[in-house]
Amino acid sequence: FLRQRVARLHESELGDLIEAIQADQRIALVRLLGDDFDLTALTEVDEAIRLQIVENLPNAQIAAAIGELDSDDAVYILEDLDQADQDEILAQLPFTERVRLRRALDYPESSAGRRMQTEFVAVPPFWTVGQTIDYMRDEEDLPESFSQIFVIDPTFRLLGAVDLDRILRTKRQVKIEAIMRETNHPIPAVMDQEEAAQEFEQYDLLSAAVVDEGGRLVGVLTIDDVVDVIQEEAEEDLMRLGGVGDEELSDTVTETSRSRVPWLFVNLLTAILAASVISLFEATIEEIVALAVLMPIVAGMGGNAGSQTMTVTVRALATRNLDIHNAWRVVRREAGVGLLNGMVFGILIGLVAGLWFQDVNIGGIIATAMLINMFAAAVAGILIPILLDRLGADPAVSSAVFVTTVTDITGFFAFLGLATWWFRIGVGS
Amino acid sequence: FLRQRVARLHESELGDLIEAIQADQRIALVRLLGDDFDLTALTEVDEAIRLQIVENLPNAQIAAAIGELDSDDAVYILEDLDQADQDEILAQLPFTERVRLRRALDYPESSAGRRMQTEFVAVPPFWTVGQTIDYMRDEEDLPESFSQIFVIDPTFRLLGAVDLDRILRTKRQVKIEAIMRETNHPIPAVMDQEEAAQEFEQYDLLSAAVVDEGGRLVGVLTIDDVVDVIQEEAEEDLMRLGGVGDEELSDTVTETSRSRVPWLFVNLLTAILAASVISLFEATIEEIVALAVLMPIVAGMGGNAGSQTMTVTVRALATRNLDIHNAWRVVRREAGVGLLNGMVFGILIGLVAGLWFQDVNIGGIIATAMLINMFAAAVAGILIPILLDRLGADPAVSSAVFVTTVTDITGFFAFLGLATWWFRIGVGS
Ligand SMILES: [Mg+2]
Ligand SMILES: [Mg+2]
Ligand SMILES: [Mg+2]
Ligand SMILES: [Mg+2]
Ligand SMILES: [Mg+2]
Ligand SMILES: [Mg+2]
Ligand SMILES: [Mg+2]
Ligand SMILES: [Mg+2]
Ligand SMILES: [Mg+2]
Ligand SMILES: [Mg+2]
Ligand SMILES: [Mg+2]
Ligand SMILES: [Mg+2]
Ligand SMILES: [Mg+2]
Repeated sequence: FLRQRVARLHESELGDLIEAIQADQRIALVRLLGDDFDLTALTEVDEAIRLQIVENLPNAQIAAAIGELDSDDAVYILEDLDQADQDEILAQLPFTERVRLRRALDYPESSAGRRMQTEFVAVPPFWTVGQTIDYMRDEEDLPESFSQIFVIDPTFRLLGAVDLDRILRTKRQVKIEAIMRETNHPIPAVMDQEEAAQEFEQYDLLSAAVVDEGGRLVGVLTIDDVVDVIQEEAEEDLMRLGGVGDEELSDTVTETSRSRVPWLFVNLLTAILAASVISLFEATIEEIVALAVLMPIVAGMGGNAGSQTMTVTVRALATRNLDIHNAWRVVRREAGVGLLNGMVFGILIGLVAGLWFQDVNIGGIIATAMLINMFAAAVAGILIPILLDRLGADPAVSSAVFVTTVTDITGFFAFLGLATWWFRIGVGS
Repeated sequence: FLRQRVARLHESELGDLIEAIQADQRIALVRLLGDDFDLTALTEVDEAIRLQIVENLPNAQIAAAIGELDSDDAVYILEDLDQADQDEILAQLPFTERVRLRRALDYPESSAGRRMQTEFVAVPPFWTVGQTIDYMRDEEDLPESFSQIFVIDPTFRLLGAVDLDRILRTKRQVKIEAIMRETNHPIPAVMDQEEAAQEFEQYDLLSAAVVDEGGRLVGVLTIDDVVDVIQEEAEEDLMRLGGVGDEELSDTVTETSRSRVPWLFVNLLTAILAASVISLFEATIEEIVALAVLMPIVAGMGGNAGSQTMTVTVRALATRNLDIHNAWRVVRREAGVGLLNGMVFGILIGLVAGLWFQDVNIGGIIATAMLINMFAAAVAGILIPILLDRLGADPAVSSAVFVTTVTDITGFFAFLGLATWWFRIGVGS
C-alpha cells in the first residue's frame, strides 16, 4: 500500500518526504521500498541526507539502481562518495555504463561534462525521416523527453541537429541531412557550468550538445538541469555576499562553525585594524566623550552605503551587465550618489548630533565626516569588486571585507581626525 | 550591408549591441533598420534604454512591429509605457491581438498571466494524430517551438495535453483523446511568477498551460521565460539583502539616490538608537577610553555572525527548504554555532585586547561580551527572518536592519555594561 502511494510521487516530492521524516525513518522507508526505490529522489535531497541513505544501502543495491538512472543523476550521486565506494559501485555496472560514468567523473566538478546526460538520440545523415521515426518508436532506451536529435558521423563527430517538430512536419522519405541545421551552441565538456547556463539563458536553449575537444558528441545538457545550475550559482553569490561559504542546512554545529570561522576571522583582523585607527585619537575621545557615542554612526552608515553599491556591482559583474562599455559611467554615477546621499545624511546627522550634544561644532564635524565616508563608501563599493574581478578573483567572496575595511577606517579617521583638528585649534594648544 | 549583419544577430546579441553603443547611435541604428528592426531585442535591454528607444519611435511603427512579436514579449515592452502610449499603440492593433494583450495587461504585474504567451497549439479531442500533424504542417502562425500541444473543448476548457514526441511515435489514425494525458501542473493566471517558477523547477517542466478561474486555457508559460523569472527573483533577494531596491544600472544619480535613501534612513535611525545605548555609559568611557577603542569590534563581529545566519535563513525560506519540519533543529544548530564561535572569538579577542591594553580585566570583559553578542546574533539571525516570514513580510527586505539593530545594541550594552559593572566594583564605588 505504501509502495503504491510512494510510487505515484514525483521524484522531487519523494525527496521532500525523505527530508521531512526522521533519520531512522528514512532508512526504514528506503529499505521498505527496496528495488522500487527510485534513486532519482536522492538528487533532490540535501547532501548529508543523501550520504546517510547511500551509506546505509549495500553497494550492490546501489549499483543495480544506479544503472536505471539518467547518467547525470547517477553522476550527481556518485561524485559525493569517497573513491573506494565509487570504485566498488562502478565495478558492478555493465561496461558501457561504467565507461560513461567514469568519463563524466573525469571532467572537472561543476563542468558541463559533469552535468550532462549521456542519453540522447543521434542518427547518421543519410537516414531518412521515416527511418528516424521508426527508430525512435522501437528504441527502448531513449531519453524520457527530448526536443532535438543530433546528426553524427561514424566517429561521433557532431554534424548538425534537427528539431523534433521539424521532423514531425517533414515527409518520411526526406533524408535527415536535407533538413538538418547547424548545431546550436555546442558546449565544450570542460566549460564551467555557470558559463554553460549563461549560454542557455542568452539563447533560450532547451538542450545543447556537449562535445569533447575533437568535436565529438559526448552528451547533452538539458534545461531542467541548467535551471538547477542557475539556482546554485545565484545561491552561491547570495551566500558569499553574506559571508557564508559551502554549507548545508543539514550540517552539524561543528561543521557549520568550521565553515563560518574563516570569514569571521578575517573580519576580526580588519576590526582590530579599525580599532587601532580609533586608538590614535584616544586623547580626543577622553576630552570629548560625545565622539565615542557618535563615531559608530559614521562608520556604520558608510558600511551601509558601501553595501548597496557593492551589491549592485557584484550582481552586475555576475550577469555580465557591467563591462568596459559602461563601467566608467556607472563609477561616476555611484560617486555622484555617494556625494548626494552623503550631503543628505550629513545634514540629517549634523542636526541630530548638534541638538543632542548642544554643540554646533560637533554637528558640523559629523556632517562633514558623513559626507566624506559615504563618498568613500560608494567609490570603494564599485571599484573594489571591479578590481577583484579584473584580478580573476570572485568579487562576491571578498568584496565585503575590503569595502567595510575602507568604510570603517575612513569613517573613524575622518570623524575623529576632523574633531581632533577642529577642537585643538579652537580649544587652544 | 549593416542590415544584413544585424539581421543575423540573435535578439540577445542585438540587445547587447544596443546597450553597448551611445545613446544617439542607438536611435540612429533603430531608424536605419526601420521595419527590419526586431523589437524582441528590446526585451533584452535595460528598462531606461528600452523606454528611450520606444519614445523615439512613432507609435504607429511600434504598433506594426508589436504585432510581429510573441505576445509575452509584446506585453513586456508595453507594460512599462504610460497608459496613454499603451492605449494609442493597442488601438492600432488588429482586434484579436488587442484583446489578447489587454487581457494580459489586466493580470497583476509579475503574475503568470503577464509572463505567458498566447501562442500555442490546441486541438479538439476527436481529431486524429494525422489531422493534428497536417494542421501543424499547414498552420503558419504557430509558436516558434513547442514541446506539447493542448486538448480543449469548444469553450477552451483544458481537457489534457500530448507531448510532441508521443505524437511522433503514434500512428496517424489514432484519435488525440486516446493518447492524451492529464495536463501537467496547469498554472492559474493570477499565480505569482515566483511560485510558477518553483513549479517549473520542482517538476522539470518545459512548458505549462496557463488557465483562468474557469479552467480555460488562456496561454502558455515557457521555460525560457521562467528562467528569466528565476534570475529576476534570485537577483531580487540578493539585492534586498544588500539594502538595494528596484533600480537599474542605467538609472541616473538622482533616481539611484532616491532609491537608496529609504533603507539608509532606517539604518540611520537604528544607528542613533545604538548610539543612545553607548551614551548611557559615557562616564565609563571617559574613565577607560580603551573601551571606546574596543567596542566597535564587539558590535561588528556580532553584525558579521548575524549576517551569516541571516543569509542562510533568508535563502532557505525562499527555496522553501526551511519549514516547520526542520526549523527547530536549525534554530538549535545556529544557537550552538553562536555559542561555539562566540567562545572561539571571545578567547581570541580577549587575548588581543588584554595584551594590547595590558589589562586582564579588559580581556575578560571583551571575551564575555563577544560570546554574548555572537550568541545573540545567531539567535536573532534565524528567528527574525522566520518571524517576518510568518507575518507575511519578505524576510530579505527587512531582516538585515532588525538583525544589526539587535547585534549593535546587544554588543554595546553587554560590553560597556559589563565594564561598568566590573570596574565599579573593582575600582571602588
Ligand atoms: Mg554535490
Ligand atoms: Mg533568455
Ligand atoms: Mg537530467
Ligand atoms: Mg533533476
Ligand atoms: Mg560556481
Ligand atoms: Mg558565480
Ligand atoms: Mg518591466
Ligand atoms: Mg528540477
Ligand atoms: Mg517567450
Ligand atoms: Mg525572451
Ligand atoms: Mg517578486
Ligand atoms: Mg523572492
Ligand atoms: Mg526603474
